[in-house]
Amino acid sequence: MTTPLAALTNHQVRLAARPVGLPQAGDWQFTESPVQEPQDGGVLVKTLALSLDPAMRGWMNEGKSYIPPVGIGEVMRAGGIGVVVASKNAAFAVGDHVTGGPGVQEYWAVPADQVKRSGLAKIDLRLGSVTQWLNVLGMPGMTGYFGLMDVGQPQPGETVVVSGAAGAVGQTVGQMAKIKGCRVVGIAGGAAKCRWVVEELGFDACIDYKGGSVRDGLKEHCPKGVDIYFDNVGGEILDTVLTRINRKARIVICGAISQYNNTTAVQGPKNYLSLLVNRARMEGIVVFDYADRYHLAIAEMAGYLKDGRMKSKEDVVEGGVAAFPETLTKLFTGENFGKLVLKISD
Amino acid sequence: MTTPLAALTNHQVRLAARPVGLPQAGDWQFTESPVQEPQDGGVLVKTLALSLDPAMRGWMNEGKSYIPPVGIGEVMRAGGIGVVVASKNAAFAVGDHVTGGPGVQEYWAVPADQVKRSGLAKIDLRLGSVTQWLNVLGMPGMTGYFGLMDVGQPQPGETVVVSGAAGAVGQTVGQMAKIKGCRVVGIAGGAAKCRWVVEELGFDACIDYKGGSVRDGLKEHCPKGVDIYFDNVGGEILDTVLTRINRKARIVICGAISQYNNTTAVQGPKNYLSLLVNRARMEGIVVFDYADRYHLAIAEMAGYLKDGRMKSKEDVVEGGVAAFPETLTKLFTGENFGKLVLKISD
Repeated sequence: MTTPLAALTNHQVRLAARPVGLPQAGDWQFTESPVQEPQDGGVLVKTLALSLDPAMRGWMNEGKSYIPPVGIGEVMRAGGIGVVVASKNAAFAVGDHVTGGPGVQEYWAVPADQVKRSGLAKIDLRLGSVTQWLNVLGMPGMTGYFGLMDVGQPQPGETVVVSGAAGAVGQTVGQMAKIKGCRVVGIAGGAAKCRWVVEELGFDACIDYKGGSVRDGLKEHCPKGVDIYFDNVGGEILDTVLTRINRKARIVICGAISQYNNTTAVQGPKNYLSLLVNRARMEGIVVFDYADRYHLAIAEMAGYLKDGRMKSKEDVVEGGVAAFPETLTKLFTGENFGKLVLKISD
Repeated sequence: MTTPLAALTNHQVRLAARPVGLPQAGDWQFTESPVQEPQDGGVLVKTLALSLDPAMRGWMNEGKSYIPPVGIGEVMRAGGIGVVVASKNAAFAVGDHVTGGPGVQEYWAVPADQVKRSGLAKIDLRLGSVTQWLNVLGMPGMTGYFGLMDVGQPQPGETVVVSGAAGAVGQTVGQMAKIKGCRVVGIAGGAAKCRWVVEELGFDACIDYKGGSVRDGLKEHCPKGVDIYFDNVGGEILDTVLTRINRKARIVICGAISQYNNTTAVQGPKNYLSLLVNRARMEGIVVFDYADRYHLAIAEMAGYLKDGRMKSKEDVVEGGVAAFPETLTKLFTGENFGKLVLKISD
């Protein structure tokens, strides 16, 4: 143990209030605490980078969901990559790179009884970089992979549409669908994102919902209709795609970023009876259900990263934990371009 | 050939205009035409009873659906049971009872080139009565059977909720789910229907949506949540059930009678993100997809009718084709009690 831990301060961002609509400055609280040596069986991790995800908005709300909400006064929940700086656990050595849920703080103390539960796991930087481990090889990649493959079940020649195409999940979905032999049409906001999705990621087309009509775009780019729609956005776009689905289509409900900051009720898909007419299904995906198969998806996609069939784009923001609140809002205004990552330390 | 066909008149009901909201008197036209001997290969059927179904409302609308709309001036489409009164087709003899789509008219002339396409098929009245052949052994029964068994996939011990519980499809769904070992909770309008569903059909409970809160009813009668919801109604009830579903729940979208006469947009399920949280799916069913397996479902359910495990209730309205328009509206006001059948002839 060479690092003088006692000299270090852990800067943290805590949830101060439950946001109404888009999170505001007053919803956050900045705190600091001393860094301490781990107890027997415990591990101390220095955070390198945090994953900023649309799902975070849901975690701030009261109410039943797939995981409990973040409590008022608690460190904001966040997934991330770190490096072990002190360990009294034989499974982790100083210098090991790890993935887990450090939360929005610079140091993550994992006590012995939480090492397993916390999902702390070593990662291999030969398979991908720190930021790729938060993107294609991380939760968004796992979400896209299993949502597409297990829920969507793509067949060669089918047409796959994915919204949030330039985002973290959308990148994986579209590239995997291309690898599986599908026609892939993205939906994204802005000409630059659309161009990148087509030119860099190899999608067949991308519809700019800010620059034109999604309905017209679907007519033009999905001449044989839509077999799989991977939905990250909900709202009007979901309703529009529902008018273009084929028989036995699969709609993967992964998120609804257009609805997360609503102060009124969520807008339900008024065209849902298209499911009846087309004998189609709409099904939700929660990535944690596939934890025992993450290693398989990582191995497969790391291979595609290596052989160039898959690319991974991250939008890395510098500034440490203090920059968390304003960086998070980029997700909801669509300012991020690629997987949004907050860099905490080198 | 003993019937003096030339002496007979065929009374018909035609669609005169596309209804806005609930169909009105002016949307219908009454016509008559002479009855004629069939040509070679053709069959002439006298209609005995017609099936009145919520789906009829959809057939009156312009626009793409699972079958083309009824044209203006055409005889209104309807399924029914009849008896062959003249035949120049070796497969059908005078006196044979048949099922098919006679439409709202007293005589159905099926030309040679349409015998196959029309779905004309002999039925065996030893398996069930004329009205049972329009109910449990007919389209509603097939819809309930395959919607529950193929889309819902019930497992013993699961909780199944069905709306329109006293209706044609609901009866089959609930009774089949009981036979398959599920807990079954109906939703119906009025104390009499609810009592009948529990006392006569053997449902475990039934929630009267006109007499109380569906939310409270679900809490009370589905203490272990909802595994399958078979939806015939849409609207608020669908949204309420979505708040009570279990992980991996299946929502079978069979219809949305609450929305069919809307003059504004369909109300989408604003709680659809419950599909995500619960990794649940919502899937449409169209009965025609199962045509090659109807005979299996009929054989199975005819057995249950015989051994008393299944009952079949029809609400038979007398009055012939002239009574069609006002009888149809009973469906949408919920006045019918059991499968609505219009008797045309003895």
